Amino acid sequence: MRGEIIATGTELITGQVAECNAQYAARRLHEASLPVQCITIVADDALMLREALARAVRRSQFVLITGGLGPTDDDLTVAAAAAELDLKLVQDAGVMHKIHRFLEKRGLPWEERYRRLALIPEGATVLDPGRGACGFSLKYGDTWLFFLPGIPQEMRALFNGVVLPALISLAGPREVLVQRRLRLFGLTETQVQQVVSGLAGLAQGVSWGFYPEFPEIHLTLTAKGENREELEAALDRLIGALSREVGEVLLGPEEGSLEELVGLRLRETKFTLAVAESCTGGLICHRLTNVPGASDYFLGGVVAYSNQAKVDLLQVMEETLAARGAVSQETAVAMASGVREAFHSDVGLAVTGIAGPTGGTPEKPVGTVYLGLALPWGVEAQHHLFHGSREQIKTLSAQTALNWLRRELQHAQGLSRH
Amino acid sequence: MRGEIIATGTELITGQVAECNAQYAARRLHEASLPVQCITIVADDALMLREALARAVRRSQFVLITGGLGPTDDDLTVAAAAAELDLKLVQDAGVMHKIHRFLEKRGLPWEERYRRLALIPEGATVLDPGRGACGFSLKYGDTWLFFLPGIPQEMRALFNGVVLPALISLAGPREVLVQRRLRLFGLTETQVQQVVSGLAGLAQGVSWGFYPEFPEIHLTLTAKGENREELEAALDRLIGALSREVGEVLLGPEEGSLEELVGLRLRETKFTLAVAESCTGGLICHRLTNVPGASDYFLGGVVAYSNQAKVDLLQVMEETLAARGAVSQETAVAMASGVREAFHSDVGLAVTGIAGPTGGTPEKPVGTVYLGLALPWGVEAQHHLFHGSREQIKTLSAQTALNWLRRELQHAQGLSRH
Repeated sequence: MRGEIIATGTELITGQVAECNAQYAARRLHEASLPVQCITIVADDALMLREALARAVRRSQFVLITGGLGPTDDDLTVAAAAAELDLKLVQDAGVMHKIHRFLEKRGLPWEERYRRLALIPEGATVLDPGRGACGFSLKYGDTWLFFLPGIPQEMRALFNGVVLPALISLAGPREVLVQRRLRLFGLTETQVQQVVSGLAGLAQGVSWGFYPEFPEIHLTLTAKGENREELEAALDRLIGALSREVGEVLLGPEEGSLEELVGLRLRETKFTLAVAESCTGGLICHRLTNVPGASDYFLGGVVAYSNQAKVDLLQVMEETLAARGAVSQETAVAMASGVREAFHSDVGLAVTGIAGPTGGTPEKPVGTVYLGLALPWGVEAQHHLFHGSREQIKTLSAQTALNWLRRELQHAQGLSRH
Repeated sequence: MRGEIIATGTELITGQVAECNAQYAARRLHEASLPVQCITIVADDALMLREALARAVRRSQFVLITGGLGPTDDDLTVAAAAAELDLKLVQDAGVMHKIHRFLEKRGLPWEERYRRLALIPEGATVLDPGRGACGFSLKYGDTWLFFLPGIPQEMRALFNGVVLPALISLAGPREVLVQRRLRLFGLTETQVQQVVSGLAGLAQGVSWGFYPEFPEIHLTLTAKGENREELEAALDRLIGALSREVGEVLLGPEEGSLEELVGLRLRETKFTLAVAESCTGGLICHRLTNVPGASDYFLGGVVAYSNQAKVDLLQVMEETLAARGAVSQETAVAMASGVREAFHSDVGLAVTGIAGPTGGTPEKPVGTVYLGLALPWGVEAQHHLFHGSREQIKTLSAQTALNWLRRELQHAQGLSRH
């Protein structure tokens, strides 16, 4: 099936709003082996919209149209489709009822313009996601047309709940397709590719794609065949082998962030955490506290940007700072132990480094970062040299520190609390 | 002039990469009164590309085509254009020379496929931004075609440096257009609109548009006329009046973030800053330290997520926490004073609140936030009730706190340091 998408909205071609509906649908369709060949973005202009529709029904077997279904004067999609495809519009009683119920519930008055919301072409099927705005579908010649609302949440709900399943079933019995998305951090694309290629036997029949999402790489593994269970098992085996090869860089499935993984590990080990940040400037604490319920295990942190703060709040000795410098293994260790004591936590995590763009020296160039990790059974340090802008170095430092913590907690799992 | 844009690249319609070139150009063209009527995104597919080109030269006076100019097999734009528009391709000596120089400089070997990079249609004009990839333009019938590279930085350099000025001059003498973009925080669109409408006399002949950029609103003011100086003066008067009306919400011109403005004010007042964060969890420190050189005025902060940390590190009295709660005016004041003392800073800024989704009570619902600000001449508190998700409440709290600090420092300017 050849498909295409038309996104309507003047705000989309004046740069006021970034187009995301068509691109979202295109990605999901591609993943479901129903790729689209073209995305057309047009203003709220009846002529342009009619031109795009006329072309689409000539060349595509399915067409998604997003936007322009609302009650205001710039919502032209239904009228343009009726005019171009010579369709009669009728009032849908079910949609009308839904509108009245919606208004009553919120105590809003009826307005005549809402009547437009229930107009659909004769013979069209209303697409109802249960909650939120409806769309409709109809067959014109050999082409299936799906009309969806333009507000992204509503569009996605209807697309995922109704349109994609319908398209998959229209496409008929095809190969089964099983896909997994994994998140990786700490290897380059090329390095990951080498590892995957090294698993040739297991990776047979599995195609993969890389999607860089700084600072992570997302890896899509797709298996096609006839038997879903076999494909699932093959992907399980491949991911198992990958995880044995590069466990430290494999963060897990696409859903869930690194800070959520850290939170899960802290809950499992029943450890509490405190963080001392210098060059990351609060980013690690910010990420940890984005997770709902983080207060169960995260006690807090110190952003020790000045040397005096490292001494006063983290008990780093002035001699250490003088002899080794604020950016050193010794300071990182002292910060990690100091923050652990200050907050009476089980774990202390510390970062000190030079985010740039200034402050580098030949011995300690911009990007030099030391991490410290104080655990009930001892304290360790790591040295890294990152490249990039100030914000990239902050991001890489925070990500590396959180990932180190995740792995240490994974190893510690099973050990009882001190 | 009617214009349109064609963006090519399979990665753009499989969801691997978000389309940004066409949308960037569309926005800039709109701002220059050269709106496009359509954006077409097609895969690296010669037939689809030819179809899009054929349509574009029939209906548009100018067409931008981005992507597909590289040396690899999926770079099809030049060949497709030559085939569809019946153009002969020739080797451009200038571009060829540029490629050789580029390779020599980096010590890279010549490869035969680079020859494709210098192929352009006979009669086309090479568009050279000075540094980076070239493009070319040509006139076909009544239509001007501009071919640009697909890598965003290269595309933008060529578009801003060569293509946009060329289009403006092709469009011929038109009205002069002067535009300003302002950043606002703390009023709704409707409220800002009312203020602008209230300045009717000054706003005459000025059109405005709102671009929500959570948590800010960006406001574009556009004046058209014959005399640039008069238009500039009219916009200056309007912005002056706006700033008198809503000075506290007007952050300034589009460039520069709120944390940069705070940094500037701190440099001017020669004040140092420390921050105590509870519900914002490090976000304020993170934003402040995104500004290069922040260590000149930012000493650090405490993320006091647990009550114990508020007592131990910020000297909040246990009685205050017991009697008033961690989320209270008294605690915010104590945290601000406490962090100011702990870091020996001139200014202490504090936030405590309930970011949700849990933790709310009938008296203190999710979104309840208290801010504290300790200055050399005294300490103040603010109470807010924000709505939204956990991350939105964190963002709104951080933004409101930084904006309060900015305004207080603005008032303090001129006062000498204690």
